[in-house]
Amino acid sequence: MNQSAEYCDVGGMVAPPPCTMVIFGGSGDLTRRKLLPSLYNMAREGFLNEKFAVIGTGSTPLSDDDFRTRLREGVEEMYPGAIDKAVLDRLAASLYYVRGRFTKSEEFPALKKRLEEVGERHGTEGNVLYYLAIPPQSFGDVADNLGKVGLVHDPLQPGPWTRLIIEKPFGDDLESAQELNRRLAAVFHERQIHRIDHYLGKETVQNILLFRFTNGIFEPVWNRRYVDHVQITVAEKLGVEGRGAFYDHAGSLRDVMQNHMFQLLCLVAMEPPNKLEAEAVRSEKVKVLDAIHPMSPAEIDRFTVRGQYGPGTVDGKAVPGYRQEPSVSPTSNIDTFSAVRLEVENWRWAGVPFYLRTGKRLPVRDTEIVVQFRQAPLMLLDGMAARQPPNRLTIHVQPDERITLRFHAKCPGPPVRLAPVQMEFKYSELDGKTRGTGYETLLYDCMMGDRMLFHRADMVESAWRIATPILKQWESQQPKDFPNYPAGTWGPPAAEELIQRDGHRWFGPDDHT
Amino acid sequence: MNQSAEYCDVGGMVAPPPCTMVIFGGSGDLTRRKLLPSLYNMAREGFLNEKFAVIGTGSTPLSDDDFRTRLREGVEEMYPGAIDKAVLDRLAASLYYVRGRFTKSEEFPALKKRLEEVGERHGTEGNVLYYLAIPPQSFGDVADNLGKVGLVHDPLQPGPWTRLIIEKPFGDDLESAQELNRRLAAVFHERQIHRIDHYLGKETVQNILLFRFTNGIFEPVWNRRYVDHVQITVAEKLGVEGRGAFYDHAGSLRDVMQNHMFQLLCLVAMEPPNKLEAEAVRSEKVKVLDAIHPMSPAEIDRFTVRGQYGPGTVDGKAVPGYRQEPSVSPTSNIDTFSAVRLEVENWRWAGVPFYLRTGKRLPVRDTEIVVQFRQAPLMLLDGMAARQPPNRLTIHVQPDERITLRFHAKCPGPPVRLAPVQMEFKYSELDGKTRGTGYETLLYDCMMGDRMLFHRADMVESAWRIATPILKQWESQQPKDFPNYPAGTWGPPAAEELIQRDGHRWFGPDDHT
Repeated sequence: MNQSAEYCDVGGMVAPPPCTMVIFGGSGDLTRRKLLPSLYNMAREGFLNEKFAVIGTGSTPLSDDDFRTRLREGVEEMYPGAIDKAVLDRLAASLYYVRGRFTKSEEFPALKKRLEEVGERHGTEGNVLYYLAIPPQSFGDVADNLGKVGLVHDPLQPGPWTRLIIEKPFGDDLESAQELNRRLAAVFHERQIHRIDHYLGKETVQNILLFRFTNGIFEPVWNRRYVDHVQITVAEKLGVEGRGAFYDHAGSLRDVMQNHMFQLLCLVAMEPPNKLEAEAVRSEKVKVLDAIHPMSPAEIDRFTVRGQYGPGTVDGKAVPGYRQEPSVSPTSNIDTFSAVRLEVENWRWAGVPFYLRTGKRLPVRDTEIVVQFRQAPLMLLDGMAARQPPNRLTIHVQPDERITLRFHAKCPGPPVRLAPVQMEFKYSELDGKTRGTGYETLLYDCMMGDRMLFHRADMVESAWRIATPILKQWESQQPKDFPNYPAGTWGPPAAEELIQRDGHRWFGPDDHT
Repeated sequence: MNQSAEYCDVGGMVAPPPCTMVIFGGSGDLTRRKLLPSLYNMAREGFLNEKFAVIGTGSTPLSDDDFRTRLREGVEEMYPGAIDKAVLDRLAASLYYVRGRFTKSEEFPALKKRLEEVGERHGTEGNVLYYLAIPPQSFGDVADNLGKVGLVHDPLQPGPWTRLIIEKPFGDDLESAQELNRRLAAVFHERQIHRIDHYLGKETVQNILLFRFTNGIFEPVWNRRYVDHVQITVAEKLGVEGRGAFYDHAGSLRDVMQNHMFQLLCLVAMEPPNKLEAEAVRSEKVKVLDAIHPMSPAEIDRFTVRGQYGPGTVDGKAVPGYRQEPSVSPTSNIDTFSAVRLEVENWRWAGVPFYLRTGKRLPVRDTEIVVQFRQAPLMLLDGMAARQPPNRLTIHVQPDERITLRFHAKCPGPPVRLAPVQMEFKYSELDGKTRGTGYETLLYDCMMGDRMLFHRADMVESAWRIATPILKQWESQQPKDFPNYPAGTWGPPAAEELIQRDGHRWFGPDDHT
């Protein structure tokens, strides 16, 4: 589809303003695997200002050169043998490293000094982007200290900008999220805080808004009158993959549903914003979450399902159960699977169920949003109903980025029969470029000062307001049946029952081929 | 898409009742090229009763064996080297021939006698299907005589059935159509008369009804509130191909628009029928035509365009102009191109223009229906309008049978830009079988007693009621600019002006790739 791809070619990119990026957790895995390769991609495609530098910090003792080697390694892993050396060398020359844990204020003067030196050398004009790639329990301390030593510029005053990016989790429940927001707000203005969610950087996810609100034909049927129900599935094939210690305190509802999936839900359900601008869009998203009432204990029993995988088979190979994973308690009761049935109680969606499920060790990796429409109002052919499942629009987020529309067409020849068929748009038709890490757009937006794709404080709290009662009840009531699904299956039977009770079934990758 | 194709596999076909088919014009081209191969296809796929026979009649002296040879030739031409000999032999053995022009009643007793013999031999139970593959001026005489000699069974009485199939043209204008209908009605009940239109046998055309009325998501936007306008194009690349003598008395409006295109218009614009049954569907179609008012002379000047091709280039080869074609008057003023702008003045469509165009010697062969939707109500991005043409649904009838939906998607990467993209469903995904002539479904339906795909008398007259004033005005006012488009172009400039005046443009095959 070259004709379409041409529309996307806008020639040179608008480079963001100069800045220095300070990565707390610079010696960590995320930095090497994602952040540094993302900066390389941005540099290669013109998304970075030439006046740019990076200061990595971390407790691991590294020289500047060691840190530059991490960049080279990360990029090499991502694009083996296909690297633009000039771009890489140039970027490497702007990388620096300062050792420190930065939870105590004594460590900050050294960072401040280095920041001034590097900023001057690279002409970054005092703009600084702090990226906290560190455990969330340190967010508050680092923020406090940045404030104390005068490394945060008040955005209401003229001068350079200071911005902060933090990685999830944004709290563990409503209270801890409120506490984190309070501590950050004591130092940073909300407009400076960027709660990053790599799901929101995915093209297909970004496209949901544009798909809904730039096309005249979908929005008229995007409501309770025509939509029967909505399903959102985030299925992972992997287990905890060495993250057992972390995961055993998180679980699937906290790790995936409360943030990524609630965001997908917001994008699907939100009203059209007045403008495609950060605050307009984020306010509409919060309205969706606020239209979902926190469940009562009885509702939690009825409308949520939790699961934990036992030993099973994935891709033909035997894999251990969750309790047998490294660093996991052998009596763990954490959820590796969760499913909920929600309703968005507003004028558009009243009465339309939204089913969300996510889990580890499911049969496939698959993130998709299914909008199932109502049946046509009248069956024009006798006995046609059975052969005529309703129309479905599916937004496939991963692994393949595409949109499919299921409808019916006449079978060739007499007699008149219907077959389900589908139309498909593959996102790859638009995208001739090398795929990135998913962070590029988000880093670029942050540098450009566009907060649309980041979580806002009230959004985080609204999401926890829904999730926290469920988590609390799950924690207070031990599950009796864990493990309740074998690895390599679609979760516990109760997840099927949850949706079958309404006369529906979960759709999966097999339903779109 | 095997999953879908499985839906279409209903196992054995329901064979129609036994019958003898009498083909008037049995020695002609249509019989050899279309009708006999269609019967072969039907026999091969189980769409024919084993108790079946054909009697060909014509002025050419042929033996039964000669007639059978025509069958073999016709099938061989269509499927060179890939014939099911057993099926062909069996069908050939049921073919007979009776010489005669059958415009005079004296010729009929011989036919009657043969019909009885053949019917008895093949056990066709007295059911007879008359197919008039003869010039339309003989339709009335043949019908009269069939009635006079008692070869038409009253359908209101119990007993075997008699059915009639006639080929277009169904009159040359309103008066002649009314006269033909009157003469046929004197002998046949309307339910016995099958006015065949091979366009209506095309799968994509049959699918329009099912697409619209079995899918819940299209019908809500299928009206004046969401549809901006509709375009129907029937473009032929060929010239008159030896049919000059006929064509010079017909023209494009009479030959294509008044019948095929008005039928397409009806299918796109009609209200949902109460049932998917012949009279319910045909009554809804008539209502569409009756909602189009015959134009005044001033409206004809403004809303219709006629053209005639001059010499030009098609596929890189020089081709003669229409007036240079064999058997065409060198001063002919017949239209080889016509375009009209109509409105369907009912509650659903008031104010929505329908643009129809057809012509010979256009750059490509292409039949398509474009439903252009309105722009989204609000441009969420500044400067987005120019890059955001409205959504379009296109039903491609030929040469490729498919449905495409144009919409917008986000371009990959920042900044936010839109590209037009499309989803596509190809009819070939459903159809693993050898393509037929297009007549199979129609012949089968006639034998089954299903009249849905045939023109009804009132439908024909309503179509002429719209076309006749245009034809009369065109005939009375000599065109001053003929030839006004070179062969191999999209018709006269006035056709572009017709649609540009409303701020639109014609879409063609280049707009869907």
